[in-house]
Amino acid sequence: MRSRSAPWNAELVNDQPEGPVLHPLLAGRWSPTTFDPAYEASPAEVEVLLEAARWAPSAGNSQPWAFIVGRRGDRTHRRLVRHLAGSSAAWALTASLLIANLAHRFVEGTDWEFSEFAVYDLGQAVAHLTVQAQALGLHVRQFRAFDRADLAAEFAVPSHWEVTTMAAVGRLPPALAASIDPEPAELLTRSRRALDDIVWTAG
Amino acid sequence: MRSRSAPWNAELVNDQPEGPVLHPLLAGRWSPTTFDPAYEASPAEVEVLLEAARWAPSAGNSQPWAFIVGRRGDRTHRRLVRHLAGSSAAWALTASLLIANLAHRFVEGTDWEFSEFAVYDLGQAVAHLTVQAQALGLHVRQFRAFDRADLAAEFAVPSHWEVTTMAAVGRLPPALAASIDPEPAELLTRSRRALDDIVWTAG
Repeated sequence: MRSRSAPWNAELVNDQPEGPVLHPLLAGRWSPTTFDPAYEASPAEVEVLLEAARWAPSAGNSQPWAFIVGRRGDRTHRRLVRHLAGSSAAWALTASLLIANLAHRFVEGTDWEFSEFAVYDLGQAVAHLTVQAQALGLHVRQFRAFDRADLAAEFAVPSHWEVTTMAAVGRLPPALAASIDPEPAELLTRSRRALDDIVWTAG
Repeated sequence: MRSRSAPWNAELVNDQPEGPVLHPLLAGRWSPTTFDPAYEASPAEVEVLLEAARWAPSAGNSQPWAFIVGRRGDRTHRRLVRHLAGSSAAWALTASLLIANLAHRFVEGTDWEFSEFAVYDLGQAVAHLTVQAQALGLHVRQFRAFDRADLAAEFAVPSHWEVTTMAAVGRLPPALAASIDPEPAELLTRSRRALDDIVWTAG
């Protein structure tokens, strides 16, 4: 698929040990499957998370996103929980927040794309929300294990919008948080393709 | 489309002036259309930008992304520049880097989606790269004004991958950087839909 014969551009390789490092908000980010069931996110935390999403970039400033936000214990949360698959209900209920992330897919009443980049830009907005969550000492796990059609019906989401993903947001359980090494070590417990496998050198 | 009769959940409104604020890396982010043509991004900067993308979350850790990175003056940059539309060539040449952002759309040799979230996750990866750029004192402007087919042909991108967007990365020209107010003021020069317009309350 891509050229593996040549390593990626040698000019780009950082062999300076003192070079810039990944920002702690990115290096320390990961997607837990358990949260502190006692932690309640404050309205102020919810607001700043949504502000982060709101100020994300989008194609032509189209802002093709919307969010359904349930705080554990409130009515919206109860209505979101109904549509979780068993696999996500097994862990997502410990999160302080459940958020349904909606993309503006079509122009209302047509099959024209609202924006070629609606889903891409929703991904950006949720990424910005995730970075802000890290800044608040919270973690985010995104997931797809929910009934998309039933959730859309529950909240009267019209057909030109799509409930694309959900996100669970919360604090790590204290015992887990205490057991985690600082960010650089944490990276070791995640896995990704190597850098020279994501830089295209073919052609 | 969405319910405008009720403002978004009053419980969520932050009326505490001392609440958490948007992280400076997000509050200070915007998409300039001019960069410092004298600034050269170092290999170490390029590497940490790609590391940020590499460690972004993705559905099932599918990592459906790849990047073609040109540093102003190198051969990859010259090959990327050939495929810019006039509208982007008018400003993007001042950036230190041009990056083509690729999504793994299909399973090779089939019309099956590689991941339902390939484009969404590419958006997340570019968002993480953008946050890292801010941390380096750089800015990013994403754009679509390039010839997708010709660029893909130039770099032998196979048909199951898509060159989804491009990003220009650079420093602000010194005079512009000096004229910009601190982050909170900068927000005023951008515009977004109101918070109560992106929180779904219908149903």
